Parts: sequence; structure tokens; C-alpha cells
Amino acid sequence: MSDELKRGLEGVLVAESSLSNIDGDAGRLVYRGYAIEDLAREASYEEVCYLLWHGHLPDRDELDAFEDALANERAVDDRILATLDELAGDERPMAALRTAVSMFSAGDPDSAANPRDREATLRKGRRVAAKVPTVLAAFDRLRNGEKPVEPHPDLGYAANFLYMLTGEEPDEVAAETFDQALVLHADHGLNASTFTTMVIASTFADAYSALTGGVGALSGPLHGGANQDVMEMLYEIDEAGADPVDFVADARENREDWRVPGWGHRVYNVKDPRADILQSRLEELGESADDTKWYDATTAIENHLREEGLIEKGIAPNVDFYSGSVYHQLGIPMDMYTPIFAMSRVSGWLGHILEYQENNRLIRPRARYTGPEDESFVPVDER
Amino acid sequence: MSDELKRGLEGVLVAESSLSNIDGDAGRLVYRGYAIEDLAREASYEEVCYLLWHGHLPDRDELDAFEDALANERAVDDRILATLDELAGDERPMAALRTAVSMFSAGDPDSAANPRDREATLRKGRRVAAKVPTVLAAFDRLRNGEKPVEPHPDLGYAANFLYMLTGEEPDEVAAETFDQALVLHADHGLNASTFTTMVIASTFADAYSALTGGVGALSGPLHGGANQDVMEMLYEIDEAGADPVDFVADARENREDWRVPGWGHRVYNVKDPRADILQSRLEELGESADDTKWYDATTAIENHLREEGLIEKGIAPNVDFYSGSVYHQLGIPMDMYTPIFAMSRVSGWLGHILEYQENNRLIRPRARYTGPEDESFVPVDER
Repeated sequence: MSDELKRGLEGVLVAESSLSNIDGDAGRLVYRGYAIEDLAREASYEEVCYLLWHGHLPDRDELDAFEDALANERAVDDRILATLDELAGDERPMAALRTAVSMFSAGDPDSAANPRDREATLRKGRRVAAKVPTVLAAFDRLRNGEKPVEPHPDLGYAANFLYMLTGEEPDEVAAETFDQALVLHADHGLNASTFTTMVIASTFADAYSALTGGVGALSGPLHGGANQDVMEMLYEIDEAGADPVDFVADARENREDWRVPGWGHRVYNVKDPRADILQSRLEELGESADDTKWYDATTAIENHLREEGLIEKGIAPNVDFYSGSVYHQLGIPMDMYTPIFAMSRVSGWLGHILEYQENNRLIRPRARYTGPEDESFVPVDER
Repeated sequence: MSDELKRGLEGVLVAESSLSNIDGDAGRLVYRGYAIEDLAREASYEEVCYLLWHGHLPDRDELDAFEDALANERAVDDRILATLDELAGDERPMAALRTAVSMFSAGDPDSAANPRDREATLRKGRRVAAKVPTVLAAFDRLRNGEKPVEPHPDLGYAANFLYMLTGEEPDEVAAETFDQALVLHADHGLNASTFTTMVIASTFADAYSALTGGVGALSGPLHGGANQDVMEMLYEIDEAGADPVDFVADARENREDWRVPGWGHRVYNVKDPRADILQSRLEELGESADDTKWYDATTAIENHLREEGLIEKGIAPNVDFYSGSVYHQLGIPMDMYTPIFAMSRVSGWLGHILEYQENNRLIRPRARYTGPEDESFVPVDER
């Protein structure tokens, strides 16, 4: 046992993984060896989900079967819809999602499965991945006093979510862009939520427990949520009619402890490759909607901060810097950005659960004890 | 960054803590310097909870205020009771508890609190600690077709749970024994569920997210649940009319991969001090009920395995070896043993959350990437 304190477990290797690899200096991200740029451009979210869970890209038959299996699991139990309806008045979407994922175990035909049964864990994962979009769209509609929209069996994963959210089939650009955003967020090494799912799964708790924990971890402002901060900044700039570059320069100079949201990352020292991809999609979305103001503002801020030398210091735009604007342009409410992150990340979470449990070791670190050793107990009335 | 793989994070120091210290060679456990034997004998669960959260044992005024604050939070929202009723037909208690803890955030007056607001986190912790017994007792009654029993404001934490579970005020021996069991399970270093709550809290997700994750981790058979395994073994012995020692000797010899449940622990190499305390309580309970068969059986098994030299090999009775029989003798259903563990451990979980967030660092380890690096993407119909 080493006496060194590993704060935040920074740099500590806790497992082997073949799911994703990040080269933080080169700005390169691969899922099972495939460059994120190729997957975003060429593969659907369902293909990527299959890749992460099964280790290879599906052939046509495998993909058809996988898509069918997911589509067949989209419907959500009435008990969950009733609870979502009860929560819609005063609960935040990530908290409602956490509760719904926890409720997915009720009525699971695999609930008595051996926790080491990999096929059962895969089925649980499919249930969760299939149902999360239904839950999120239903929750958003319920809180707006609208009836949930039933899943559309002929639409793909991404298009079906936008359909259930708005009640209208999305156009091709919107569906494709959203699908890409899901692909980009599917996995990213042992971030805090993924690691949470691994710690829980290391006890052989079931996938619902692990994934519920993942949603909880992602709800934290140091993990998910930065894209919402970016969007709030952009709204503030827009409402004030300010110049984005002036705004950022002023905020950096004059606001205490202010940091540009969506910049900087524990792992990347250069621009996050996912940010590059989303920046292009944001430009396309803006051009197709004849409204490039969000693209213009974010790009101007990026260029300004580049000139200020931030990237040379290892502080660069991450995926959140562009994803918020993309979601905004797709008509998605701001407090659904982190839930959408969770929707996508279910694939990575389950991939890591499956991989870790294959060669499982209960995760139990130690703390250095810094408290007293020999206190004498004194009864309460003599204290 | 070291290249060494830290499987299970065994021996890795991830934080400093003054909550509890385990000397696995001496069989000694302290909470903030107080020996577990003193606390079990002298302090109530409420006092221990206060000790873990506030760093010192409360004086009379502090304890009265803390007990009142907990007692005032015992009632559970009708929405949660309605969901529990829906789940009572087919959900396991730990899963129902996980869902209920997740739902505690709904209607929390502190839901918009700054996640760094320690006082708000303490209030959330009190809400959870106060309501978990109510949820568990209500769930058990609902699944038996009985109406939940309202919390009894004049009973202490332990006695009130037994009252809500059975509808009858427990006698003094039962209430005291249960209170001791709660004290014994309140904290135990960075076990997997406690570490789960820390990883989640390190994102500044709220206490409900962290504690929901803790319940999920504890539901895993490698963490909670061993006391249930012990009880199942004792039932099997009892129903077969077998001699406990013969049964264990035979199972060790002839059953593949069979291990004595409730023996062995990652941290202890000698008998767990909590097991000693519960063994005495089990003897007392048995004598007061004129039924010492569970005490006799477990003690006979322990003595046999001692003679077999297991303890010399570092495999010794842990807390689970005696807790199951104690709960059985208190009339608690077997599948509630792990939920009761969770009920108690809320105190340790929240203590570690508060402590970790004071000097927070996002927990994000790394994986050693073992997958391919340069895969060429091939479209699905060409695979």
C-alpha cells in the first residue's frame, strides 16, 4: 500500500478497457479504434451502441435485430408515467430521470437473473437505453400540460426522441444532427458518471442500480451541465445586445472567479474533437434555418480566446461549448441538455459495466485516517 | 501517472477522513476516535449520526434539537407512498428504497440550494435519514396488504422503525438491540457504497443523487446481502434438522465454490469487532425469548471454524455472521436485512459526502486502453 494520496484519482489506472481512448494532447477520440469523426459522420447511434456493447460494428442482420429489440422496448410502464406525472410539477428533469431509471427494474422479467449473467445485463441495458428517450419526452410534455406522445416504431433512435418531444417528425438535418450529438456523447473513458456505474456494478448490483447512479453523477454541475452554462451565457449576451467578444473579455477581467463555460477539460489539452464536429453542425443548422447568430457568437468567442493564448495554456473548447447551441437550434429546452447527455451515455455506461464485470474486482479504496484515536466516551448529560 | 493497474483500488488512498478508522489486524473500529464497543453500549444511533456529521458527540441541547429535527422529517410525501404501493407487488425492497430515496428530492425546499451549501446538504441528509425507516416499514406493510403505520413522534429512531414495521411498540431489549445494530453499521471507511456516494458527490450532484447511488451499490451481493446468506444457511440447517458443524464441514468439503457466508473481509484479518458485539446481543435476545438455537448454531459454527484454523488464515467472522440472526430474532423479514443496513449507513454516507465536498476534487480515474487504435470504418452493408 502506497502512502501517497491520489486526489480525484487523477492518473490512477483502475481498469483495462477497450471501449474508448482519448489522446488529450492530439485531440483524438476513438471508440474501439474507430475515430470519432468517422463514427459521427457514418454511423448511427444504434450502431455505436452495438459497437460499445458487443465489441464490433454490427452487420446488417445484427443491426436490424438490435434496432428492433430497442424499438420494441420503447414503451414505458404506466406506473412510471404516473410517477412522472406526479413529479412534473416540481422536479428537475435529471432527478425525474434518476427516479424513472430506478423504476425500470419493476416488472423486469430478468429481475431474478444471476447478476453475473451477461445476457441478462445486456437486456437490462437495452431496456434502459430504449426507455430513457420516452421518459424524457414524456416528462417534458407532462410538465407543459401535454399528453405524452407514443414512440414511433418506424423512426430511428434520434428521430423518435425528437418526435416524442415535439409531436412532429423532425426533418432530416435535425434528425441527423441529433443522432451525431448522441454518437459524440456515447462514451468518454472513465469520467465520473461512468466510474460511478463501475463502482456500483463491482458489487454485482444490477444494471438499474448502476445506471441510476450514473444519472445521479452526471447531474452534478462539475460533470454534466456545462453546455447549459454556455447557453445561459449566450442568452445573456443576446438579451443585452452585447458583442460576444467584448462580453467575454469583460467578464474575464471583472467577474470574480468567472471562467468561460465549455472551456478546459481534465483530459484534453487541445480542442476537443467533438467540439470541432459540433461546430460544423451548428454552422449547417444555422445556415439551413437562416439564423447563424449562435454559431457566429460561439465561433467569435473561440477565435478571441485563441488569440488570447488560452489554448496554448491547455485550456480549449470542449464538447459543451458547442452542444448547447446545437440543442437550442433543434428546439430542445435548456434543462434537457444534461438529460440528453445521459440518454446517449447509457451506451458507454453499460459498455463499461459489461467489460468491468467480466474481470470483476470489488472497488474499495482507502482513506487516510486523520481523526483522533483514543477518545473517552462521556455520557450525553456530562458533556 | 503510474502505469500500475490498481485493481479494485485496493490499498489506494483516495481521500483523508476523520470519520472512521479500521485496524484490520487488531480488530478495532473507531468512529472519530470512539471505540465501537463504547458507542454501541452507550450511544444512541442519533448520537452517532450527529457525531459523524458534526464531528463531535452532541451535548443535551444539541441532541434534543437533532432528535426533534429528525422526528419532524419522518413523514413521507403521498407521492412516494403511492409509488411504493405501485411497486409493492413485484419490486424488491432495495430497489423500492432506491426509487424512494431518488424521489425524496421532489418538493425539497432546498432543491435550488447551491450544491456547495453545507447546511443545505445537512438538511437533505436529515430528510433522507428520517424518511428511510418510514419508507421501508411502509413498503413491507403494503406488500403484505396492510396499511402503513404513521411514525410515532415520541419513539427514538430505532424503536420507531420497529413500531412502524409491526404496528406495536417494541420492548426495551428489542429497541436497544436494534439501536445497537444501527450504531454498528453506521460507518466503515470507504466501502463500495460509501465510495459510490463520494464519486457522485464529487461532481457536486446533490445528496439525493449520491445517496440513491449508495443504496444501489449496497444492493450488490458482494457488498450488502451476506447476512441474508447466513440466515439462509441457518434456515437450511434448521429445516434439515442437521447439526450446524456437520453441515458446514460437509458443505466446505463437497459443495463446489462454497464459502461460509459472513466470514472473511477485505479489511479485517481477525474477528470483526462488530461481530463480537452482535454475538453477545444474540445471546441475550435468545435468552430473553427462551430460544437460543440461532445463537447456539452460529457460535458452534464459529468455534468449529476456529478449530479448523480459518482465523489463522485471516478469514474470520464479520458483522454479517451475527446480524442476520439478530434481525431474525427481532422479527424482521429476511429481505429487509440489507435495507436496514442502508438505513443505518445513510449516516456514514452523508458524513463522507460532507467531508469530501469540503476539500473536493472531481473523482475521475483512468483506464489502460487495450483496444485497437486505427480501425477503418466500413459502412454497414459492406461489413
